Amino acid sequence: MEQITVLELGKRAKAVKNILAAASPKQKNDALAAIADALVKRTDEIVAANKIDLENAVKNNMSKAMQDRLLLTPERIEGIAAGVRKLIQLEEVVGCVESGVVRPNGLRIQKTRVPLGVIGIIYESRPNVTVDAATLCMKAGNCAILRGGKEAFSSNSCLMDIMRDAVEAAGLPKDIVQLVGDTSRESSNQLMTLSEYLDVLIPRGGAGLINAVAQNATVPVIKTGVGNCHVFVDESADLEMAVNIVDNGKTQRPSVCNAIETVLIHRAVAEKFLPMMKARLDAHNVVLHGDDTTQTVLGNSVLAATDTDYATEYGDYQLAVKIVDSVDEAIEHIGVYGTNHSECIVTKSLDNAEKFQREIDAAAVYVNASTRFTDGGEFGFGAEIGISTQKLHARGPMGLYELTTVKYLINGEGQIR
Amino acid sequence: MEQITVLELGKRAKAVKNILAAASPKQKNDALAAIADALVKRTDEIVAANKIDLENAVKNNMSKAMQDRLLLTPERIEGIAAGVRKLIQLEEVVGCVESGVVRPNGLRIQKTRVPLGVIGIIYESRPNVTVDAATLCMKAGNCAILRGGKEAFSSNSCLMDIMRDAVEAAGLPKDIVQLVGDTSRESSNQLMTLSEYLDVLIPRGGAGLINAVAQNATVPVIKTGVGNCHVFVDESADLEMAVNIVDNGKTQRPSVCNAIETVLIHRAVAEKFLPMMKARLDAHNVVLHGDDTTQTVLGNSVLAATDTDYATEYGDYQLAVKIVDSVDEAIEHIGVYGTNHSECIVTKSLDNAEKFQREIDAAAVYVNASTRFTDGGEFGFGAEIGISTQKLHARGPMGLYELTTVKYLINGEGQIR
Repeated sequence: MEQITVLELGKRAKAVKNILAAASPKQKNDALAAIADALVKRTDEIVAANKIDLENAVKNNMSKAMQDRLLLTPERIEGIAAGVRKLIQLEEVVGCVESGVVRPNGLRIQKTRVPLGVIGIIYESRPNVTVDAATLCMKAGNCAILRGGKEAFSSNSCLMDIMRDAVEAAGLPKDIVQLVGDTSRESSNQLMTLSEYLDVLIPRGGAGLINAVAQNATVPVIKTGVGNCHVFVDESADLEMAVNIVDNGKTQRPSVCNAIETVLIHRAVAEKFLPMMKARLDAHNVVLHGDDTTQTVLGNSVLAATDTDYATEYGDYQLAVKIVDSVDEAIEHIGVYGTNHSECIVTKSLDNAEKFQREIDAAAVYVNASTRFTDGGEFGFGAEIGISTQKLHARGPMGLYELTTVKYLINGEGQIR
Repeated sequence: MEQITVLELGKRAKAVKNILAAASPKQKNDALAAIADALVKRTDEIVAANKIDLENAVKNNMSKAMQDRLLLTPERIEGIAAGVRKLIQLEEVVGCVESGVVRPNGLRIQKTRVPLGVIGIIYESRPNVTVDAATLCMKAGNCAILRGGKEAFSSNSCLMDIMRDAVEAAGLPKDIVQLVGDTSRESSNQLMTLSEYLDVLIPRGGAGLINAVAQNATVPVIKTGVGNCHVFVDESADLEMAVNIVDNGKTQRPSVCNAIETVLIHRAVAEKFLPMMKARLDAHNVVLHGDDTTQTVLGNSVLAATDTDYATEYGDYQLAVKIVDSVDEAIEHIGVYGTNHSECIVTKSLDNAEKFQREIDAAAVYVNASTRFTDGGEFGFGAEIGISTQKLHARGPMGLYELTTVKYLINGEGQIR
């Protein structure tokens, strides 16, 4: 891929964004189909490019888990293509009328959805994000400028070349999808301040990246992904249900943002619940960090929990435990340590369920269900670009709708004020 | 008023924001009614405090127009109180369910509206904004930290004291509305970076303020107010209607952001339209800045328009004029010089109307109506905190709805993934 400055990428996106914004559903879907076909047809190229990243990964002693994230096999490439084909089936959002009124003076006002414009995405290792993010942006009528991690640069470049060729063959300008051809910190900073050309920046990654973006970006940002999620097991909880929800939240996929990190347990049920929970979690060798009561009940295998534990998103088979005296104390703890992502109460009390849902300040507040459901697919959005933990614009899973904004269309017959 | 640091204001707001967020519609409306009553009852105090600002204004040679903006009379105070009473009538937004689904696994997911939390507002001279902004935030369940201009500090302090007393008397914590007790640039910068305590910052003012905020803020920002708006008079326009719309857009209230600054005229009607337009605008002594053709048709009274003219939000009885060859050229001009606020085409052509509405990238795009309608009141929102010219979160007039965000409530019976 030719090396182009971030500024030049911005200019190229700006030059074509109106063409994409005005493209018909069919034009966009044709381009998506062309991408899906090309990914499968050019699988060998992708695997070869991916091999270079994998060889570097071995040289750099990357962990096996991280190497697995990098790996692209023909099956995985087929899976990525299938994700793109799924987008084709989703309903068009651009141009939809969200609401409309006729004012007393006869003005007809329509609130319509339009693309955001040009979206920058900074992400880390997984190369599948290159295709997922670009195509989701495209379906919503947005140009994408992607800046992936250096570990996946060879794979990302290959995937981008294939997408650009396919887009062009389908009759849209190839510059609607672009990859930053340089993975230095500098290129990341340039993207964060490309206000004249970028409408939104979405960082996808760990707390370090999110904070760097929040501090440095002059482009409007949608923060995603940091999740220090809790389950509160209330006095009246169905304890079997609570064990299932804690186990699922912790062990089904510990590395994701909607996994739980701390369980809060009402003192009245602690003695009964703790051993039930431990027995289940032991199957996954989950390390517990508990307060005094937890240690007393469960014994020496429980490490002492510190404030740092309660503030940590382990992303691993570790879980902090705290005994509380009331739903109020649980809500207060979550207010201090939570990251406004997903929180759950297990209870049979209507009062406590309603209080928890009303007073917890988070994107998703659950009663008697696992926090692992905070996901665009599980919410029925069909696809997702990330999970927003901020309050402006989008909160929770972001699908096509969240990748659009508003345009008011007003029609009259000469009305003046 | 006691002098408190901006950080301390943030802490105080955070300490009470959950109380306001959970307040019932009646509690909030009672507080609003108490504020309206107190403003009228304590009119003498307000007028006395305002007199101090007015005396300083005279000392500092403030323009008559600016002095008039500062002035609070008993009638104007009654008007402010009436605005607060109007809020009471508006439908509650907090807690409303925007949409809901039942997923195949039985999970019930509701998308509800909740307050943003704590809103910072930086504004300039008009003291009525102190009450308008604080009460609109309150109705939507948000705490407000206001930072007004130094010219109105005495008036703002008095209005704030009255509101805080009334809120407390009505049974809500007075810290839900606060005024920054220091009008230095430093206090403004502190507010822009109070990320831990502020959920959103809304600057209301000129381009200088908006740009300073965009550059320096780490708090999420909603930009408001800069409007370089255009009317395009198409070949097929009803020229009488076009004159009305241009005249209304320019002269009805030239200082506001939805007033027009440039008129674009299709070459085919320029010779006929220009004299009609000039005759009408002469009644207000509007100064025209035109291109060569305009100068040729209208003669010496027209100044030569420069690129700077086309980029300027005059906010005054001045208007730039440009002759274009097509709707495409008009759209292109607006793309270069527009500020994504409000744009208008006057036409009888369905094709051109649709093309203009589709391709113009602005909050509000008009066909055959004045841009002056871009306003929360005119759109039927009942009240307005400003007009957003950005794409994230809110675009166009911002009412109660735009002062809220999303919370997903998910109820299940033990579902896990």
